[in-house]
Amino acid sequence: MNAILLKHRELCSCDLEIWHFILSCLQICAAPGFFTLPSALPACSTRHRRKTRKISIHQVPTMLWEMSCVLIFLLARLSSGGAFIIAPSVNALSDATPFLGLRRSGRRSIKMSSHLHYVSPLKEVPTHPDESFRQRWEEVIYSEQDRICEAIAAVDGTAFKEDSWQRGDKGGGGRTRVLQGGKVFEKGGVNVSVVYGKLPPSAAQQMTSRGHKDVAGDVPLKFYAAGLSLVIHPHNPMAPTVHANYRFFQLFNADTGEPITWWFGGGSDLTPSYLVEEDAVHFHQTLKDACDKHDPTYYARFKKWCDEYFLLQHRGETRGVGGIFFDDLNESGDPEKSLAFARDALHCFVDGYVPLVERHKDDPYTDEQKAWQQLRRGRYVEFNLLFDRGTKFGLQTPNSRIESILMSLPLTARWEYQHIPADDSWEGRTLAVLKKPVDWIPLQGTQEEKEQRELTTAAS
Amino acid sequence: MNAILLKHRELCSCDLEIWHFILSCLQICAAPGFFTLPSALPACSTRHRRKTRKISIHQVPTMLWEMSCVLIFLLARLSSGGAFIIAPSVNALSDATPFLGLRRSGRRSIKMSSHLHYVSPLKEVPTHPDESFRQRWEEVIYSEQDRICEAIAAVDGTAFKEDSWQRGDKGGGGRTRVLQGGKVFEKGGVNVSVVYGKLPPSAAQQMTSRGHKDVAGDVPLKFYAAGLSLVIHPHNPMAPTVHANYRFFQLFNADTGEPITWWFGGGSDLTPSYLVEEDAVHFHQTLKDACDKHDPTYYARFKKWCDEYFLLQHRGETRGVGGIFFDDLNESGDPEKSLAFARDALHCFVDGYVPLVERHKDDPYTDEQKAWQQLRRGRYVEFNLLFDRGTKFGLQTPNSRIESILMSLPLTARWEYQHIPADDSWEGRTLAVLKKPVDWIPLQGTQEEKEQRELTTAAS
Repeated sequence: MNAILLKHRELCSCDLEIWHFILSCLQICAAPGFFTLPSALPACSTRHRRKTRKISIHQVPTMLWEMSCVLIFLLARLSSGGAFIIAPSVNALSDATPFLGLRRSGRRSIKMSSHLHYVSPLKEVPTHPDESFRQRWEEVIYSEQDRICEAIAAVDGTAFKEDSWQRGDKGGGGRTRVLQGGKVFEKGGVNVSVVYGKLPPSAAQQMTSRGHKDVAGDVPLKFYAAGLSLVIHPHNPMAPTVHANYRFFQLFNADTGEPITWWFGGGSDLTPSYLVEEDAVHFHQTLKDACDKHDPTYYARFKKWCDEYFLLQHRGETRGVGGIFFDDLNESGDPEKSLAFARDALHCFVDGYVPLVERHKDDPYTDEQKAWQQLRRGRYVEFNLLFDRGTKFGLQTPNSRIESILMSLPLTARWEYQHIPADDSWEGRTLAVLKKPVDWIPLQGTQEEKEQRELTTAAS
Repeated sequence: MNAILLKHRELCSCDLEIWHFILSCLQICAAPGFFTLPSALPACSTRHRRKTRKISIHQVPTMLWEMSCVLIFLLARLSSGGAFIIAPSVNALSDATPFLGLRRSGRRSIKMSSHLHYVSPLKEVPTHPDESFRQRWEEVIYSEQDRICEAIAAVDGTAFKEDSWQRGDKGGGGRTRVLQGGKVFEKGGVNVSVVYGKLPPSAAQQMTSRGHKDVAGDVPLKFYAAGLSLVIHPHNPMAPTVHANYRFFQLFNADTGEPITWWFGGGSDLTPSYLVEEDAVHFHQTLKDACDKHDPTYYARFKKWCDEYFLLQHRGETRGVGGIFFDDLNESGDPEKSLAFARDALHCFVDGYVPLVERHKDDPYTDEQKAWQQLRRGRYVEFNLLFDRGTKFGLQTPNSRIESILMSLPLTARWEYQHIPADDSWEGRTLAVLKKPVDWIPLQGTQEEKEQRELTTAAS
């Protein structure tokens, strides 16, 4: 007698992956000597799986998970042989204690009762990133900072100015590199920051509202956040502005020091003042290639997320032509996998962006075109100050380095009252794309993927 | 037998006034035939009154009020003659129903029990502003818009461009006037807006967090908001930027249409790039004169509130040299009084600001000084997008007119990485004042006021 336990949190934070996992579990269960869960898990059929892609994933999996738990409990109680629990990791079981009659001992281990056995279909992964993991991530971002700055400085012929800084006695610091008033670039900043300390209540509040259940409650939290963020604004209005940010975040119980949760977040996005379609395609293609190496679903999901995130809600227009954006990425349960993906997405930055600047840095332009660029810079400021989560988190963090956080703002910006370009002008056509995001890379793939896209399109 | 009931909300929203009121009530009570409350109200002595100025006024008065209520109830029950209730208005009693065993009938009237009699020491005032009140306020803001635009246009020699607009079918509209690229002014906007409709939940949330108890709960709300807001940015870096905003706000139960609460808010504040002390003194003096006509405590309170409100928290510097700021002003319980004050504070704008521009519009300046002004413009943008409550409310209101809300942003702004002026430069001295607000008008007054200031200073 045996059964499946699915990790609740995993189910909430992803969609397609978890159905793959469910299916692989069912295959194991269907093997001789294993008990297959009855139809209480209808979502596991391939057909249903496609459909549920559009259902609110926060509701369905929770319900399924609870049903599964109750079932497992009953099976285990009724069977003389006990039940096997199949879960991504032992940590996954902690959520199930109320249902399974298990006892928790500490955050990491679960006291199994005699009639329940734990089996994982995945290779065992470190439950939480440790010091050496954090060090490796820091090495990634510091070395990418070197590489990116070298490439940008080579285009400009001007060196970056470097400031290493400490966050007072509050923990951490960073290395800010800025190129201001260069030949090609008006202002560019590439910043590494590694900060840690007590999590401000307002920041904890924001995390809770984003669905970090671990953050709820009155447990005081410590955080560790390490990331690279960059924004590059060229002089020439035909050369696009770019932004990238890749960060690793970990939370700890401030009293016991025990790790609570971790995630990666980030993305890259392109903001042209004047849309050049092949630039957008090139930028997206490099990101898609990096995504595809890790997960066939990443690019489509993170491209959409990017369009939704970099939205100036009050104007109904995106900040630019997008790229990828993701947050709270820990769905694989394996920090190594997420680190590898974040590293590759960051690594493709130079190839994705530098050729676009090379192509346009000497394009001719008029004063009006420069003024339009300045208006678009104004929109950039609006997004960063009104909506950007990273900026908000930074400004709320005590003793944070304001100069590094607001480095993303352009050197100059402009706001004109009622400036509305003609629809058929280059400016108007660019604006139209910002109001209705475009799929730069018509998604291609297997027959199955194609079918799924058609179903998705039909449902939406 | 008789007693005092003090209105709870009044006690929370003000400080000095209420002690005046308590004292006057006690004087009435001390007259022959009246019963004076015993020492349960220790805060009423003159000496104690001075001290409590520094105590958290949210706690002490609430406690006092509850004690008073219980006392009145006991007195009324025990006495054969019943008790008199002395309150600012009959509306004040609604908060006391749980304590007094009164029954509410609707929002406005209280069913008195036979042993309680209502007496008001104040002249009866209209409980809620009506249509004619709102019309009079609209006349004030439209005529002040004319007057201000005339004065500014006369200095510049350029006319304002006018846009009248409607808020879709959602209710209301306004009249935006903008002067862009003038001879003296880089960008100036003077905007009247009169909007009403369903209150967005996020806006209701903000009001609740500001202590609007009436807003709590699940009652759907309608709002009416009418105000004038203006921002003027001159070209010359020696001429200061100015902002003013006076608004009237009313909330209604969306189902029954009954008025729930109302308030005035607003203020005027000055933002020089280069501090000229006599300008700051002149600007503050006109505001103090307007305040003093209505309440001797207004200027000192609203000046302090202004310094606290226009604070760039992340930089620990104020936006400018201040002025006055107030919000949720309905403490007198009399809409007419608040309207008269808001009208006079708005009316003094032309005298307070225009002479400063006349004085500096042709001052010589260097390119470096212009660049410093542009950096200060950047700070202005930061405040408006990160902190300004009016901007946030506007952007959250569905179908609001973005161009009018963001009219406050300067034509051009600048962000330089790590620009730190020398301490002994004009820029550095200006920055020092922004980091530590100055009392521009040494407060003078009676011996008693002077003593109180000294006590306050000693305590802080």
